[in-house]
Amino acid sequence: MTKPSLKLAIIGGGSSYTPELVEGVLKRLDSLPVTEMHFVDIEAGREKLEIIEALTRRMVEKSGANITVQASLDRRAAITGADFVMTQFRVGGLQARANDERIPLKYDVIGQETTGPGGFAKALRTIPVILDICRDIEELAPNAWMLNFTNPAGLVTEAIHKYTNIKSIGLCNVPVSMKMMIAEIMKCSPESLSLECAGLNHLVWVHRAWLDGKEITAEVLEKIGDGANFSMNNIFEEPWDPDFLKALGAIPCPYHRYFYQTDAMLAEEKEAALNGGTRAEQVRETEAELFELYKDTTLDHKPELLEKRGGAYYSDASLNLVDAIYNNLNTIHVINVRNNGAITTLPDDAVIECSAVVGCWGARPLAIGTLSPAMSGLIHQVKAYEQLTIEAAVSGDYDKALMALASNPLVPDITRAKGILDDTLRVNHDYLPNFSAR
Amino acid sequence: MTKPSLKLAIIGGGSSYTPELVEGVLKRLDSLPVTEMHFVDIEAGREKLEIIEALTRRMVEKSGANITVQASLDRRAAITGADFVMTQFRVGGLQARANDERIPLKYDVIGQETTGPGGFAKALRTIPVILDICRDIEELAPNAWMLNFTNPAGLVTEAIHKYTNIKSIGLCNVPVSMKMMIAEIMKCSPESLSLECAGLNHLVWVHRAWLDGKEITAEVLEKIGDGANFSMNNIFEEPWDPDFLKALGAIPCPYHRYFYQTDAMLAEEKEAALNGGTRAEQVRETEAELFELYKDTTLDHKPELLEKRGGAYYSDASLNLVDAIYNNLNTIHVINVRNNGAITTLPDDAVIECSAVVGCWGARPLAIGTLSPAMSGLIHQVKAYEQLTIEAAVSGDYDKALMALASNPLVPDITRAKGILDDTLRVNHDYLPNFSAR
Amino acid sequence: MTKPSLKLAIIGGGSSYTPELVEGVLKRLDSLPVTEMHFVDIEAGREKLEIIEALTRRMVEKSGANITVQASLDRRAAITGADFVMTQFRVGGLQARANDERIPLKYDVIGQETTGPGGFAKALRTIPVILDICRDIEELAPNAWMLNFTNPAGLVTEAIHKYTNIKSIGLCNVPVSMKMMIAEIMKCSPESLSLECAGLNHLVWVHRAWLDGKEITAEVLEKIGDGANFSMNNIFEEPWDPDFLKALGAIPCPYHRYFYQTDAMLAEEKEAALNGGTRAEQVRETEAELFELYKDTTLDHKPELLEKRGGAYYSDASLNLVDAIYNNLNTIHVINVRNNGAITTLPDDAVIECSAVVGCWGARPLAIGTLSPAMSGLIHQVKAYEQLTIEAAVSGDYDKALMALASNPLVPDITRAKGILDDTLRVNHDYLPNFSAR
Amino acid sequence: MTKPSLKLAIIGGGSSYTPELVEGVLKRLDSLPVTEMHFVDIEAGREKLEIIEALTRRMVEKSGANITVQASLDRRAAITGADFVMTQFRVGGLQARANDERIPLKYDVIGQETTGPGGFAKALRTIPVILDICRDIEELAPNAWMLNFTNPAGLVTEAIHKYTNIKSIGLCNVPVSMKMMIAEIMKCSPESLSLECAGLNHLVWVHRAWLDGKEITAEVLEKIGDGANFSMNNIFEEPWDPDFLKALGAIPCPYHRYFYQTDAMLAEEKEAALNGGTRAEQVRETEAELFELYKDTTLDHKPELLEKRGGAYYSDASLNLVDAIYNNLNTIHVINVRNNGAITTLPDDAVIECSAVVGCWGARPLAIGTLSPAMSGLIHQVKAYEQLTIEAAVSGDYDKALMALASNPLVPDITRAKGILDDTLRVNHDYLPNFSAR
Repeated sequence: MTKPSLKLAIIGGGSSYTPELVEGVLKRLDSLPVTEMHFVDIEAGREKLEIIEALTRRMVEKSGANITVQASLDRRAAITGADFVMTQFRVGGLQARANDERIPLKYDVIGQETTGPGGFAKALRTIPVILDICRDIEELAPNAWMLNFTNPAGLVTEAIHKYTNIKSIGLCNVPVSMKMMIAEIMKCSPESLSLECAGLNHLVWVHRAWLDGKEITAEVLEKIGDGANFSMNNIFEEPWDPDFLKALGAIPCPYHRYFYQTDAMLAEEKEAALNGGTRAEQVRETEAELFELYKDTTLDHKPELLEKRGGAYYSDASLNLVDAIYNNLNTIHVINVRNNGAITTLPDDAVIECSAVVGCWGARPLAIGTLSPAMSGLIHQVKAYEQLTIEAAVSGDYDKALMALASNPLVPDITRAKGILDDTLRVNHDYLPNFSAR
Repeated sequence: MTKPSLKLAIIGGGSSYTPELVEGVLKRLDSLPVTEMHFVDIEAGREKLEIIEALTRRMVEKSGANITVQASLDRRAAITGADFVMTQFRVGGLQARANDERIPLKYDVIGQETTGPGGFAKALRTIPVILDICRDIEELAPNAWMLNFTNPAGLVTEAIHKYTNIKSIGLCNVPVSMKMMIAEIMKCSPESLSLECAGLNHLVWVHRAWLDGKEITAEVLEKIGDGANFSMNNIFEEPWDPDFLKALGAIPCPYHRYFYQTDAMLAEEKEAALNGGTRAEQVRETEAELFELYKDTTLDHKPELLEKRGGAYYSDASLNLVDAIYNNLNTIHVINVRNNGAITTLPDDAVIECSAVVGCWGARPLAIGTLSPAMSGLIHQVKAYEQLTIEAAVSGDYDKALMALASNPLVPDITRAKGILDDTLRVNHDYLPNFSAR
Repeated sequence: MTKPSLKLAIIGGGSSYTPELVEGVLKRLDSLPVTEMHFVDIEAGREKLEIIEALTRRMVEKSGANITVQASLDRRAAITGADFVMTQFRVGGLQARANDERIPLKYDVIGQETTGPGGFAKALRTIPVILDICRDIEELAPNAWMLNFTNPAGLVTEAIHKYTNIKSIGLCNVPVSMKMMIAEIMKCSPESLSLECAGLNHLVWVHRAWLDGKEITAEVLEKIGDGANFSMNNIFEEPWDPDFLKALGAIPCPYHRYFYQTDAMLAEEKEAALNGGTRAEQVRETEAELFELYKDTTLDHKPELLEKRGGAYYSDASLNLVDAIYNNLNTIHVINVRNNGAITTLPDDAVIECSAVVGCWGARPLAIGTLSPAMSGLIHQVKAYEQLTIEAAVSGDYDKALMALASNPLVPDITRAKGILDDTLRVNHDYLPNFSAR
Repeated sequence: MTKPSLKLAIIGGGSSYTPELVEGVLKRLDSLPVTEMHFVDIEAGREKLEIIEALTRRMVEKSGANITVQASLDRRAAITGADFVMTQFRVGGLQARANDERIPLKYDVIGQETTGPGGFAKALRTIPVILDICRDIEELAPNAWMLNFTNPAGLVTEAIHKYTNIKSIGLCNVPVSMKMMIAEIMKCSPESLSLECAGLNHLVWVHRAWLDGKEITAEVLEKIGDGANFSMNNIFEEPWDPDFLKALGAIPCPYHRYFYQTDAMLAEEKEAALNGGTRAEQVRETEAELFELYKDTTLDHKPELLEKRGGAYYSDASLNLVDAIYNNLNTIHVINVRNNGAITTLPDDAVIECSAVVGCWGARPLAIGTLSPAMSGLIHQVKAYEQLTIEAAVSGDYDKALMALASNPLVPDITRAKGILDDTLRVNHDYLPNFSAR
């Protein structure tokens, strides 16, 4: 790209994460000539949006940058002429997330924002909205890149690729976080590590790791098996069994715990739900605190507290992508892209999360070939669930939705699947116009 | 084949099922010129073997057929010169099966002879023995066909294909039983039905069903959803949810209940284990009664009681295969064969259970193509488990065994996987020489 | 099917082959209750159609069968209510075929009815017409089976599968002829042979052959290498090189000569074109003689001369298919069907010619897996040509057509491809409304 | 890598290209701490080797670099302790190449160093030698990277991957040259271009091209169709047909001319063979002149004349690879690597030439997915030829060799294939110990 100026449209601009993004933009003015940021939100988020807008203006002013800051409820105006559209909204807010976490627990099933039935509910709410946004982009900014942070990011990106023509990449902070954790384990700089990653969003493995060109995969696995910390702050750190890690031969992501250490994870969730609240309920408090801070008209930088929120590296991951595209860096990022055969047995049009090269021309996955059976079974099972969930979200078909849930490896039984589905549809009724009452 | 005489070797000849097989042979003398049957068993089964031998002689004599009946502990003698080798043995006998059923229950996991951890244990015990038998066949009867009934039949057949050069087909009575049940549901003759079957052993679906050329798949699913009987006597008949069946769009086999109706199936098993005994324990009683009957030197036919044993249609299924091979019938059988792309995304060398044509030249699956996500996820997950189990059985590697169990969709957690694995290895110690003490 | 009566619609009923079909119907009245035959042709074929109609009535009358014979130019009337629609027409008649044969020869390229640029031209003319017929069937006889004999049969069947919803099988007499020739070579009955066939139409290999269950592939190849006749009437019999056959390890079809013995085949064609005429020109004479015979109002049976015409076994192959469908025989036929993974590396929706099982429910290929490189290269090259040809025929796009021809392995150069294409489009102008003048 | 010093072993060090490589090393001393270069050659090349050694010492001395220069006939000494082994030898020298060019012409078949029967002959001579070298590397420098320039580079790299365990990348100057030519056509810097390349060695396409992120594929094709130069020194520049390019939709490499413009290329080769000599014969003269220059003890830099030799960018391409590996640059190079599903329908273990990321950890292709039929046919055909050629070279099997040649799309007929093969085996007798006399 050789455009001398860049416009960013941030859908869900009223998010408490936004100051991190703003900070990232201000840090990169040398390489990224951002001249306009347009934050959009919905009526229910107007107050937060305005707080963010004001804080952003103060941050920009302090930096001396020449950036127009806008905030509005007018999504189409924000998208018009944008070079990058970033989506970070949450349909239904934290209350919906809390429901996603609590409903499955009633059935002794993992209740989690992005994985299992919680992620399924979130996908049903999110996909229709995001496809709507994409229609706007197709019309108003057809050359724009959409960077999607909205979870479940892999599933949502697949829906975008299948149902729209826009250029889009799905993004998650898990792979970056894994790199940071491996660097800590190996007591080395993240830059000296090379990681070969492939899987699905929140189901990604580091297949091989090298430190200065020397393979260290087995060593990392051994250290994790010996108890090295390998979790993110928003996921309970149940220790990994060393025999299992050795048999796996690849480094699992923190979310794999839900699939392999289901009992312990469920127990922890149930305990938290009783005492202290689910993750959404805890986040709600942090958020309230954050917005109290943001309101302070003397604050002109990102507050420390934001780090605790669990979205570490989000801003870096996303703005590094913008950098790679704008400046044609051809650098490797672990992102959600069209498979194209990179994992041989998945369809070409499946979206996978993997090491991919990104430049001004787009993104392509590094081909990894046929997976070992230790990974191949789970990835096919979860991809099948994702395909069915997309179909269900787009069609509003009850049976498809039931089959999607029943295909999720965290849902052990169709009776429970049905209970969870019926609760989910009822509680989310306002957000699921595609689904008729039953 | 144009051989004027046929020798059958039956490994595990002391099985209580044998009289059914003998009856089948005697019924088919017009098409199958069997002149020799050699039953083999191990020292522990000598008494049963002798009872079977005597009963068989009485049955043959009554029929007037000119068949030499032999029984011995000499496997190599039995195999030498055989045209068909049939394997129906059970390493460790019913006691091992009872262990397979009870160990997982301790961990709130399905305990079943062929599916889940029970099937896994059975595979570990069986594969080394069957590969030994195959070596004998390679040496002593290289042109013989081996028909394998020993469970888990799909997994075992895949091990045979991967590690030996003999001609082998795996066989199960589930597909035939499904045809009979559909005929009953549709009140039609089995002959008027055409079924397109594909999946794995004990995980096979009828993808489409036709009655006199008219497709009836949806109608059958509706009737099953309305409560039509669709189970076999050895599987608890938990009713299927009609919404689920509609979404599936294919007719599941009775064993699918373990995967989709896990809670109810587990509850029933635990109840049975407390009162009346597990399935193996019930079978033990039936067996004892059967052998009492067989001993009766006036008995010269298969007793009625044998029907109850749960192996309905086994004899027919297997002898129909012998017939198809010997007489080059090119008829369709639902059997366990090399995939060859029939299910596109599985490896060519995976063994699948599907509609296949059988003639004197061998067997080939009917190609079904890419499966819908509703089936594709589960089949890849179970096939991955199977591949890992074969590797574990052949190598005796603990980590592979752990990964195999952890990949089984009925084992929700690696902590439980490890508990079950350790119990399994300890209890089966005598039957698992490949696994070193730990 | 349990319909007590069958209506056949024969599109291109004025063909000189028709009496063979009629004879086949009359021979099979015990198994196929045909009660109506409706022959259709176009205005230009009216005279021949009437001759055929009259001859057919005489044949039916002689047989005593109760069959209504109709002939008309009204395709829709013929299709209405038909159970089987058979297509055997030739757009542009023998003159178009003669052009197909002569145009490539100008460029020193094989000129042949179905293979190379001749088959390409025929496909361009045929596909739009056949898709029109299929639209009629969709509307007027949606449950009918269409059996397509019109060449190039594989390509045409793939177009039908991709662009219409009717039930269709493509049929060719080459595989049956190969079986007959192998039987002659081995001095055995065709029934004692089992052949595993897979490839594309006019590019099919017998991968393995068995005689009474004993594999004889190598033996057959040796005999062909030693000079055993292995060609059909209408294809010049250039001897096969024994080293090549050994390396191939599979029995090639007569049309493979065009690809592997191009020089000799081309020389023979050029010689024939100078003296005696191309194949079409020779056939024209035979046809004229045949119709002279057919006109004879005393003739009430298929005349001997018809055998010479080159379509041996056509009638048997097609009516055996009707028999398999109507009577649900589940017999193996070598036909053109959807691949479904049967040849692993070709797309599921490619049409291949292979051993397939046929019953009232349809047809499915026997899965053969990954082909050896000796076959895999050529089959992908020809399939690519076929896919491009279908796209060109449907779109009328000049560039696609050029790419199709340039991708045909018999066209060594794009300059020649362009010359042939331009001549083809000009000469066939009246039959290619999709292609605009250039 | 963090090694402070690097040893390069150059097998075939007596090549006239070597001074270019030396120049490249001397230019990169800041990023690549080369401290030792060991040139190896065979007895027949001793004189040239000594000339190169002396020239290299003068070049190194002039640069002031601290590099030990060695030259010997002792391959094992050179390999011992090497970090990079570069292979650029030619079994049989230019005389063998001249034979490769002339033999096919006798049969009216393209005679070319790397494509068609000439490349086949070269592969038969080269593969056994290169596998021998790899055995030495496995033993003496197991961590070394082997960069193979020896043609046919794709085929040879596939043989290395299939039969040895060393780390190896195959390299060719065609992709770099294409980038330079496109830059010239678009009047832009090569750095501003992004090219997505995939195919096989000497059969690679630029699937899409971008200039500063804007796609320009169609524009480049139009300019080439309008006559823009798009060939390399050593390939005759027959103009491309604009309709063909449009239909192809991708930018062909210069070597594609042999497949699509066969007639013109063959005519030019025959003309050259009569007047002026084949390419090898022309090169022989240039080489003699070059070595005359190299002998001049006052020469201490690469002479201009070397540019004409046809190997432009070789040195840059290879040393950029060394740089990427040594300094973990993760940059994109178009190289010959294991497919891993990058081109979906080719086997995982096929070697393809494509855009790949290279770092200290190795190289991985960017996944491109399923190719359009316009490319898929040709690539499968050529890959099949390559697989068969590797098998023939390793086994020395005459039939495999015949099948390989018969599968090459430039060989139109097996009679000619056999003639060429027999001549090739006879003339190369001394270099093909695997092939027994016939």
